[in-house]
Amino acid sequence: MPKFMDVHTEMKGIDRDKLVEAHKADTDIEDSEGVRFLQAWADPVSGKVFCLSEGPNKEAIQRIHERAGHKADEIYEISLEV
Amino acid sequence: MPKFMDVHTEMKGIDRDKLVEAHKADTDIEDSEGVRFLQAWADPVSGKVFCLSEGPNKEAIQRIHERAGHKADEIYEISLEV
Repeated sequence: MPKFMDVHTEMKGIDRDKLVEAHKADTDIEDSEGVRFLQAWADPVSGKVFCLSEGPNKEAIQRIHERAGHKADEIYEISLEV
Repeated sequence: MPKFMDVHTEMKGIDRDKLVEAHKADTDIEDSEGVRFLQAWADPVSGKVFCLSEGPNKEAIQRIHERAGHKADEIYEISLEV
């Protein structure tokens, strides 16, 4: 299953509760698209959030994020990792 | 120890050997700045590489990347993860 890194750029001031809530909103519905959100890292100062996931394609990742209320600004397919 | 996500944007066409080599160039000298590079994810199509690290501050991460020959384009301090 391909991996993806998606980036949200407008999450300035996000706190732990909001990050957990946003992640749960994704994982609650991820099965419907065959997606699995693995981890998320946030920088509340810049507003950047990075999400690592597995799924069939970028569109499936984006559909989950859109339905969860936080469309990703960028999505990259990760074909190499170390 | 704070975590950081840094982003390289000009690595189109990177392959497994080059990613491993670049990561090793970082880890070979990371101790000199008290940095630890944890993981890296690459999308050779867009040229994006995301590196997760721990270290004292952004400047220390950048000094390692610069000495290793691949300055980061962006560095974010990660204060929240899930």
